[in-house]
Amino acid sequence: MLEPKYQEDGLIPAIIQDRHSGKVLMLGYMNAEAYRQTLTSGFVTFYSRSRRKLWTKGEVSGHHLLTREVRVDCDQDALLIQADLTGPGCCHLGYRSCFFRKVTPQGEVIILDREFDPTRVYGEKHPESQT
Amino acid sequence: MLEPKYQEDGLIPAIIQDRHSGKVLMLGYMNAEAYRQTLTSGFVTFYSRSRRKLWTKGEVSGHHLLTREVRVDCDQDALLIQADLTGPGCCHLGYRSCFFRKVTPQGEVIILDREFDPTRVYGEKHPESQT
Repeated sequence: MLEPKYQEDGLIPAIIQDRHSGKVLMLGYMNAEAYRQTLTSGFVTFYSRSRRKLWTKGEVSGHHLLTREVRVDCDQDALLIQADLTGPGCCHLGYRSCFFRKVTPQGEVIILDREFDPTRVYGEKHPESQT
Repeated sequence: MLEPKYQEDGLIPAIIQDRHSGKVLMLGYMNAEAYRQTLTSGFVTFYSRSRRKLWTKGEVSGHHLLTREVRVDCDQDALLIQADLTGPGCCHLGYRSCFFRKVTPQGEVIILDREFDPTRVYGEKHPESQT
């Protein structure tokens, strides 16, 4: 099995793309164990830099990312994962994608609709707020 | 103008997505100056970690990335750039996307066709080989 080239901190960035729509849902980081679990369990798993531990996407929200295909880039230092999202949104702020704002000369503009109320799903703790 | 949250090394990862096909072309890194140039010049510009300097994608190959839309994620620590590619391939190995291999239990499999001969475009130096 191809082993990615991890950064000095032991992590590699992983782009998550919706397999059907092609939309980029989020960018997270994996260490070797998160990568292994992502491949073997079928559930996309990250390493949280802020909480310094593994987290399987959806462990609180129930909005899991199912691993469908894993790609590696030419330099083997970035991953692209095709996934199915088992819920209305990937973002802890209630949007389908974490990339819900575009930057314009006049400031940032929200370009997606909110799919769910994050306080209902996550409570006040927002445990997935940091990648 | 929204300022991204850069990592401790002053960089932020930037996902480049083909505006028309939705394919993810590459992942690069920007510092504040690369980000400014990407927004103002219209040409996607990165900071090369290996060469420790700015590089405008296409400065050797002529395969530029034209900035069409810049999105920022919820935590403001990742960018998603919708771009048009002015050439046959984004990858210095001759593929449309740098993510031309998928990982399988039996090993890596090339899933894209080569669009150009990299030694003809880049010569022997391959100056864009490292992000």
